[in-house]
Amino acid sequence: MPSQPAKVLETFPNPAPHRDYQIHMEVPEFTCLCPKTGQPDFAVLTLDYVPDRLCVELKSLKLYVWSFREEGHFHEDVTNRILDDLAKAVKPRFMRLTARFFVRGGIFTNVVAEHRKKGWKPTPRVDLAEFAAQSNFRG
Amino acid sequence: MPSQPAKVLETFPNPAPHRDYQIHMEVPEFTCLCPKTGQPDFAVLTLDYVPDRLCVELKSLKLYVWSFREEGHFHEDVTNRILDDLAKAVKPRFMRLTARFFVRGGIFTNVVAEHRKKGWKPTPRVDLAEFAAQSNFRG
Amino acid sequence: MPSQPAKVLETFPNPAPHRDYQIHMEVPEFTCLCPKTGQPDFAVLTLDYVPDRLCVELKSLKLYVWSFREEGHFHEDVTNRILDDLAKAVKPRFMRLTARFFVRGGIFTNVVAEHRKKGWKPTPRVDLAEFAAQSNFRG
Amino acid sequence: MPSQPAKVLETFPNPAPHRDYQIHMEVPEFTCLCPKTGQPDFAVLTLDYVPDRLCVELKSLKLYVWSFREEGHFHEDVTNRILDDLAKAVKPRFMRLTARFFVRGGIFTNVVAEHRKKGWKPTPRVDLAEFAAQSNFRG
Amino acid sequence: MPSQPAKVLETFPNPAPHRDYQIHMEVPEFTCLCPKTGQPDFAVLTLDYVPDRLCVELKSLKLYVWSFREEGHFHEDVTNRILDDLAKAVKPRFMRLTARFFVRGGIFTNVVAEHRKKGWKPTPRVDLAEFAAQSNFRG
Amino acid sequence: MPSQPAKVLETFPNPAPHRDYQIHMEVPEFTCLCPKTGQPDFAVLTLDYVPDRLCVELKSLKLYVWSFREEGHFHEDVTNRILDDLAKAVKPRFMRLTARFFVRGGIFTNVVAEHRKKGWKPTPRVDLAEFAAQSNFRG
Amino acid sequence: MPSQPAKVLETFPNPAPHRDYQIHMEVPEFTCLCPKTGQPDFAVLTLDYVPDRLCVELKSLKLYVWSFREEGHFHEDVTNRILDDLAKAVKPRFMRLTARFFVRGGIFTNVVAEHRKKGWKPTPRVDLAEFAAQSNFRG
Amino acid sequence: MPSQPAKVLETFPNPAPHRDYQIHMEVPEFTCLCPKTGQPDFAVLTLDYVPDRLCVELKSLKLYVWSFREEGHFHEDVTNRILDDLAKAVKPRFMRLTARFFVRGGIFTNVVAEHRKKGWKPTPRVDLAEFAAQSNFRG
Amino acid sequence: MPSQPAKVLETFPNPAPHRDYQIHMEVPEFTCLCPKTGQPDFAVLTLDYVPDRLCVELKSLKLYVWSFREEGHFHEDVTNRILDDLAKAVKPRFMRLTARFFVRGGIFTNVVAEHRKKGWKPTPRVDLAEFAAQSNFRG
Amino acid sequence: MPSQPAKVLETFPNPAPHRDYQIHMEVPEFTCLCPKTGQPDFAVLTLDYVPDRLCVELKSLKLYVWSFREEGHFHEDVTNRILDDLAKAVKPRFMRLTARFFVRGGIFTNVVAEHRKKGWKPTPRVDLAEFAAQSNFRG
Ligand SMILES: [Ca+2]
Ligand SMILES: [Ca+2]
Ligand SMILES: [Ca+2]
Ligand SMILES: [Ca+2]
Ligand SMILES: [Ca+2]
Ligand SMILES: [Ca+2]
Ligand SMILES: [Ca+2]
Ligand SMILES: [Ca+2]
Ligand SMILES: [Ca+2]
Ligand SMILES: [Ca+2]
Ligand SMILES: [Ca+2]
Ligand SMILES: [Ca+2]
Ligand SMILES: [Ca+2]
Ligand SMILES: [Ca+2]
Ligand SMILES: [Ca+2]
Ligand SMILES: [Ca+2]
Repeated sequence: MPSQPAKVLETFPNPAPHRDYQIHMEVPEFTCLCPKTGQPDFAVLTLDYVPDRLCVELKSLKLYVWSFREEGHFHEDVTNRILDDLAKAVKPRFMRLTARFFVRGGIFTNVVAEHRKKGWKPTPRVDLAEFAAQSNFRG
Repeated sequence: MPSQPAKVLETFPNPAPHRDYQIHMEVPEFTCLCPKTGQPDFAVLTLDYVPDRLCVELKSLKLYVWSFREEGHFHEDVTNRILDDLAKAVKPRFMRLTARFFVRGGIFTNVVAEHRKKGWKPTPRVDLAEFAAQSNFRG
Repeated sequence: MPSQPAKVLETFPNPAPHRDYQIHMEVPEFTCLCPKTGQPDFAVLTLDYVPDRLCVELKSLKLYVWSFREEGHFHEDVTNRILDDLAKAVKPRFMRLTARFFVRGGIFTNVVAEHRKKGWKPTPRVDLAEFAAQSNFRG
Repeated sequence: MPSQPAKVLETFPNPAPHRDYQIHMEVPEFTCLCPKTGQPDFAVLTLDYVPDRLCVELKSLKLYVWSFREEGHFHEDVTNRILDDLAKAVKPRFMRLTARFFVRGGIFTNVVAEHRKKGWKPTPRVDLAEFAAQSNFRG
Repeated sequence: MPSQPAKVLETFPNPAPHRDYQIHMEVPEFTCLCPKTGQPDFAVLTLDYVPDRLCVELKSLKLYVWSFREEGHFHEDVTNRILDDLAKAVKPRFMRLTARFFVRGGIFTNVVAEHRKKGWKPTPRVDLAEFAAQSNFRG
Repeated sequence: MPSQPAKVLETFPNPAPHRDYQIHMEVPEFTCLCPKTGQPDFAVLTLDYVPDRLCVELKSLKLYVWSFREEGHFHEDVTNRILDDLAKAVKPRFMRLTARFFVRGGIFTNVVAEHRKKGWKPTPRVDLAEFAAQSNFRG
Repeated sequence: MPSQPAKVLETFPNPAPHRDYQIHMEVPEFTCLCPKTGQPDFAVLTLDYVPDRLCVELKSLKLYVWSFREEGHFHEDVTNRILDDLAKAVKPRFMRLTARFFVRGGIFTNVVAEHRKKGWKPTPRVDLAEFAAQSNFRG
Repeated sequence: MPSQPAKVLETFPNPAPHRDYQIHMEVPEFTCLCPKTGQPDFAVLTLDYVPDRLCVELKSLKLYVWSFREEGHFHEDVTNRILDDLAKAVKPRFMRLTARFFVRGGIFTNVVAEHRKKGWKPTPRVDLAEFAAQSNFRG
Repeated sequence: MPSQPAKVLETFPNPAPHRDYQIHMEVPEFTCLCPKTGQPDFAVLTLDYVPDRLCVELKSLKLYVWSFREEGHFHEDVTNRILDDLAKAVKPRFMRLTARFFVRGGIFTNVVAEHRKKGWKPTPRVDLAEFAAQSNFRG
Repeated sequence: MPSQPAKVLETFPNPAPHRDYQIHMEVPEFTCLCPKTGQPDFAVLTLDYVPDRLCVELKSLKLYVWSFREEGHFHEDVTNRILDDLAKAVKPRFMRLTARFFVRGGIFTNVVAEHRKKGWKPTPRVDLAEFAAQSNFRG
């Protein structure tokens, strides 16, 4: 039975609710339609969140993203809507959504929006040296 | 009816005025003239802003940038002027304009200027781990 | 009147039919459906061709690529079909189509197919030193 | 019913047997055991082939690669064996397998082996200008 | 006598317990099984820690990572478990574990979790200019 | 006295006419107008040539490129025209012009055209190992 | 009349003294002599400053940098001297000079020094998401 | 008279003791022996410091690094020892040593340690826009 | 019993002598002494070969490379010597050794030398499209 | 006794005259003067050659390159002159000189010239798979 696009976002219990930790997901296959011209728009979505009691289920996220394929949305609006849907389903301590849209009219547009659980405060980050990763094979 | 360059910057209502979020736009097709020599200058403009009640309309931004094609401007001056025009039209909570000019005399010049709405304060940024994006196809 | 997806590929006369020269086009916005699962597939298409009497018109190419959005196709098949359509419409001296599909099952697949006009032979390439291009602004 | 690792490589009919064209697949999830020490080895496999009457089925290739997980093999040997298995199943006009193994003892080892159908000759390649691809979104 | 995978993490005394300093280790050879489908999962682990009285022994870390090869674990869960094991064995002043999992369903997932010794506070970082390293040979 | 755009390409005598050698020039500041819409187009031009008796003078090349600023031209046409003008002025043994146009309609277009002096044949290239250059300073 | 190297740094009035903004200049053509051996040394200079009433004039900066060509200077010393000269001439609110010297004895040396106007305090930076820029042409 | 490896670190007077500034040195040619196996180990050292009255002399640093060639040292230990030696000789206001060791057992290890002069406090960094440097020639 | 540096290169039988295939090994840990000054020199060695009846054993190659640690050799000489030793031990159909030495006197030197078995001829290479590999995890 | 710039190029006997092999040298510290304006010009020189009986001595090459510091030369001319001097001193079987000049007038210029010993023919290159090198440490 093939999968279907769906607005429902499924979740599972956070396996480590005793600590704040970060889940980073990148979804490079977002497409919707331009509400003005009806032409396809494309974007890469990046989701970062600190879960509270729930985590978003990966396959469900994929079907949710698929559900925009036939819908018309403006860039600024759709980014905020997706964040709202995700925040409503996952109820995270913190969530940031970044949408990087493909070039239109020679201009590149990215949108970044955040949701924060009321009263939640991030532990100040321990600022370590950072190192670029490299493969451990050649070429 | 073909488009025309225009100093007017059109806007549309911010679809999510209830939160601070970031819109990032990159305009790689800026050109004006050097006021001293009359020769063409080129730059890449990057606009980052937190909208208040208005967002800048993409096509209008393109025509506005086009309007500098026949005008003479110094680097430091034109960057501040464009920021002033954008801030006046969009009345953002925060706006940063970065202009990276093509090399002149073997020297590279970039200019970065910011506008802040009186009384607006940024929510302190939640400092997450960051990951370099990669394509999900080969080559 | 908004544009519509269309299988028709429009052309215009080659402005320099007296010489073999290369036109390179990259179309990063291809999407169709998987014929097995119905789920969306994505690819970046690269078209290289040596025109004969005709060149493919850019906007028409965009609408043609759009026309696959609701269709089910396998990777190997759709790449060869698009090449066939393009070769039939443009009747080029030479044409190469490269499709780089997004990762599926942890495996990355690219397909490269070529069409050659009967009897056409490429002039042996003059092998020059090649240099990586760099922008002439900072950052 | 969950999948199982399997040595059987499934195929499907080549949809464009009338032309020589290239299928490129990258499988970054190969692991087997070192026959000397029993410790895990890792590699990234790249498969390039010109199909004849058959193409290798993607999911089957994944299960085939999985089948090496519990087996002990030397680098030079396993690369040639996988090529032999693939060539036997797909009977391609041409096939090249590249295995890039993770560093061992501070030394990086890659192995590249090829199979060619008796009597098959490649059409001399049309040597075009090549251009590095870039994303059409920012960052 | 060949090595065996082992859950035991060996340690050695921190040679410089009088100062807070950072040890960064990257382990690109993590693999376990998906608890749902039984199929292999892969990840690159990055461990950053400020040692207290103990440091983790490199070979022991390698055998520990190997011990997950036949086990089924979800991404979010296994990252927190490995951090817990490491923190229990090494009792560091601070520890951060980053797991970057290979793409599944077209979506990339990374998980970042931290452990902090009760009462430990990082010295505020001296923020210096940073420079990208380059090899000191050509090519 | 400020410079003016000019169609005239000035030359100077080739200082080493006794050998075939390559001159490579990159001009990142080309702009003209779209003949359909009147909107600005942008491109980076790369010129490679083997001089015969003449070399193109750098400042003159700059003014020549400037002369297209107010003119309407299609991509395929203007590339061939510039090549024709340069070949007529410099009468090189060999010349290749590459024009990489900025993205339009989400599609990237590059055009590559060549001119060869009648009867000239390139010495077959000595195929050496090539090494990527790196800066000899940090960062 | 050809230009001459000169220690004099010319300035022009800051066109936007009402706001703190950043001017970034990169000068890749610095060379002086080693005071010990007399051999040439090379460096790339990067100048970042927040202007007060004056900006440094680009051509004058070029001639100033040229003036070091015949002089002997140690790395640490010359960086501080150039900063002193620039700060004296431009009287900026803030200035940072970075000198990245070419490798000597297999060791790479960079020097970073800053000048701050008495009493000036930077507005705390609004910390936005940052995106890597990419060209909007191919290759 | 050829140079000899030496534990002595020579210094010279800081030419600008009136200000805090940063000296960054990268030494890619560190090698010592593994105390367990006797086999060679390799690392790249990066030294960042804010000098007080003294600066480390470059050639002396090179001979000092050479002095480890025949000695056995563990990664964590040798990094802290080198920092101690350098801090003792140079008596800096601040010093950070980063050692990036070559891969061992498939695991990459870096160590970062710092020394701070008692009572010294860094001036809070002025957080400017940063731009990637680029060479100003092609390729 | 710890390993010792050794000039002896051990081999094992080629598991696929029926075909020409390529083994690529990269050894980033070569160091010897400058015969003039006695100071350490460093290089990265790359070995590519088509085995005949023998393959070089990885650990033996490591110990062989180690054996140069206390020896004095010029760049051009040592590269040819290592190639001679390897060719004598492995008796390959073809072998290429590339040595990239660390910068000396501000100049970068690489040496590339080849050995070919008498009478061996390479099968002309099938020239396929090539694709840059990318990781299948983020960052 | 400090070194002096010198036009004399010293050589030493080729240690492996029995085979054709490639020496690659990169000299990033070339500067001369523009003969028109007297202003400094900069370039990176790359020298590739197949030695016959002689090799160029590294320090001598450095002093030779230094000797251009006070001389006026055009780009195309100086590249051919340096090649002539090097070919005369070293009498190589083959030599290629590449000069990449810093940007002037917004245009980048590279020059590539070759010298070939009368009657010398390169052995056709064995075309192997090539792999990008990566460091074997992190970051
Ligand atoms: Ca690698
Ligand atoms: Ca950060
Ligand atoms: Ca990819
Ligand atoms: Ca080539
Ligand atoms: Ca640049
Ligand atoms: Ca982009
Ligand atoms: Ca920082
Ligand atoms: Ca390098
Ligand atoms: Ca460097
Ligand atoms: Ca920042
Ligand atoms: Ca691009
Ligand atoms: Ca450049
Ligand atoms: Ca090729
Ligand atoms: Ca990736
Ligand atoms: Ca090649
Ligand atoms: Ca590495």
